[in-house]
Amino acid sequence: MTALPPTQVIGCGLIGTSVALGLREQGIEVYLEDADPSTAADAAARGAGVVGRASEPAAVVVAVPPAAVAETVVAALEHWPRAVVTDVASVKAGIVAVVAEHPESARYVGSHPMAGSERSGPSAGSAQLFAGRPWAITPSALSSGAAIRLVEEIAVMLGAVPIRMDAPDHDEAVALVSHLPHLLSVLTAARLAGAPSGHLALSGPGLRDVTRVAGSEAGLWLDILGSNAGRVRDLLAAVRTDLDRVIDALEPGGVDTDVLADVLGAGRSGTRLIPGKHGGTPTESDAVYVQIPDTPGALSQLFAHTGESGVNVEDLRIEHELGRPVGLVEIAVVAEDVDRLVEHLVQRGWSAYR
Amino acid sequence: MTALPPTQVIGCGLIGTSVALGLREQGIEVYLEDADPSTAADAAARGAGVVGRASEPAAVVVAVPPAAVAETVVAALEHWPRAVVTDVASVKAGIVAVVAEHPESARYVGSHPMAGSERSGPSAGSAQLFAGRPWAITPSALSSGAAIRLVEEIAVMLGAVPIRMDAPDHDEAVALVSHLPHLLSVLTAARLAGAPSGHLALSGPGLRDVTRVAGSEAGLWLDILGSNAGRVRDLLAAVRTDLDRVIDALEPGGVDTDVLADVLGAGRSGTRLIPGKHGGTPTESDAVYVQIPDTPGALSQLFAHTGESGVNVEDLRIEHELGRPVGLVEIAVVAEDVDRLVEHLVQRGWSAYR
Repeated sequence: MTALPPTQVIGCGLIGTSVALGLREQGIEVYLEDADPSTAADAAARGAGVVGRASEPAAVVVAVPPAAVAETVVAALEHWPRAVVTDVASVKAGIVAVVAEHPESARYVGSHPMAGSERSGPSAGSAQLFAGRPWAITPSALSSGAAIRLVEEIAVMLGAVPIRMDAPDHDEAVALVSHLPHLLSVLTAARLAGAPSGHLALSGPGLRDVTRVAGSEAGLWLDILGSNAGRVRDLLAAVRTDLDRVIDALEPGGVDTDVLADVLGAGRSGTRLIPGKHGGTPTESDAVYVQIPDTPGALSQLFAHTGESGVNVEDLRIEHELGRPVGLVEIAVVAEDVDRLVEHLVQRGWSAYR
Repeated sequence: MTALPPTQVIGCGLIGTSVALGLREQGIEVYLEDADPSTAADAAARGAGVVGRASEPAAVVVAVPPAAVAETVVAALEHWPRAVVTDVASVKAGIVAVVAEHPESARYVGSHPMAGSERSGPSAGSAQLFAGRPWAITPSALSSGAAIRLVEEIAVMLGAVPIRMDAPDHDEAVALVSHLPHLLSVLTAARLAGAPSGHLALSGPGLRDVTRVAGSEAGLWLDILGSNAGRVRDLLAAVRTDLDRVIDALEPGGVDTDVLADVLGAGRSGTRLIPGKHGGTPTESDAVYVQIPDTPGALSQLFAHTGESGVNVEDLRIEHELGRPVGLVEIAVVAEDVDRLVEHLVQRGWSAYR
């Protein structure tokens, strides 16, 4: 892969700065622009490139807030008559449709890196933000092959996995795998308001998992949901149908266990479709549980002792429990290593068990 | 705390066996009974006690399947005229109401340890299952003070945190913190069926978190939801009202951002009410990210290197990413240790960053 000629990054928030830092690590010359000059300067100070406009960039990455993306892309196509332009907005069909009207739209390819952080701004930027993440590439019918390849090359350079799909498909996919779960997490968490605190004292890891994403900043989500409203609405309508079935099935005195079993089964099957270790491909691992006091150094020491055991750790999860200054660590190892790890940790003074 | 006289455990599944193992660790004599004698024998072989009936147990712990609990409790009250009897079923009001009819009900105190596992049976039992977990104690108005204290003492002996509440209160609490999130997780996961696999390729950690509990076995959940139907139904009806508001607010072309902002805000506030590290009391920690190859020993080695850095690890989370044989480990440490840990890990050859 030869080094690309200069790249222009417009918008130096979390995503723009991270793209710039990642390209800089590959030796690419990067120019930075932001509506707020101090934000661009901040990104530059962090090594993301130089503030200003490239004269002949090969690529322009538009990473401005969703509402400004389409006009910024069009302005970039006009300002740089040979550059390939992409953007990184979370919802694509509307933007792609607007830009397709432009005579120069062959040089535009939408994209969406599936990465983020609960932090924002250039200070949260990281060259590694996209490592191992899917990066949707959403060309229109008018996008040139060369433009598509260049945008995919950028994604690969940043360590991401490009996944090509058309924009409406992409928006349907993120409605399902991101926007729907976000809203159902929010609806679950919203019910907690007003509950007696004694009730919440019974909270366990299940509730924390389901509601974790509901803790995100609302601002960006308003934009995302607003620009994917139709697709999210269709999914929510389907959920409402299922919800009504469950409500009917829970008629006290006449509980319909067939319907409940059907819904629970559909949910369980759904979880197996999710790619990744927690989903479709369960490993043959088994768990070792270790209690840790919530004191300085405890977790580090546990890691050191686990490391010296020579047992290969497949996965690890920490639960923080209520009312006691302890946490429970679940260490997944292959089944035949369980006893060896338990024994090693017990010898080192840990309360470890299978 | 003096050792209790013998305890009878009826039902040697995961919970019964774990109670028995925990009591044995405290030097208590335990007698085991199960409708299936081979299950009781299996528990005994694992050190949970001896198979048979105690002649004068101080306490009887009923850990049979939900549908059989009330009659088993009544039979125990009649068989052992001086024993305190408790049960561990997940839904309490129905059982407590039935037992309250019995003339000996002063000796009965319902309870519910908030602990479990996706595995079941005596082989999954562990003396540590209840460590640090809430254990709801649900006396009726008729329960004697001595009986309540004895059941609380058992919970404490097993490392749990007894939380006293009346049975209807308990059932309302678990409907909110356990049964509702479970069903909304199921409804989210159920939508994944039939999605093109290319769409699921965009799945990220948010979807995995929200749908994790939906992967549980359906059988026990049918019992739980059936016996708490009215309360769960009321909560689902409230969710339906919120859901309808969101559906209306997502009218394409006329998105109502005020309503969306309101719902997103209510969700965010809800997450802050959840006790524990991930909820109400955010620590002043910051994250270090480390990429790990999915090869034997990688995680163990990372733990060893993190341990030797001397930096105190506050929390840790592993994400398994799509399409690349790597995972991303997020290590939470206090803000002033971030640079030190990154530097140490980079020196050891890791791709670590803040």
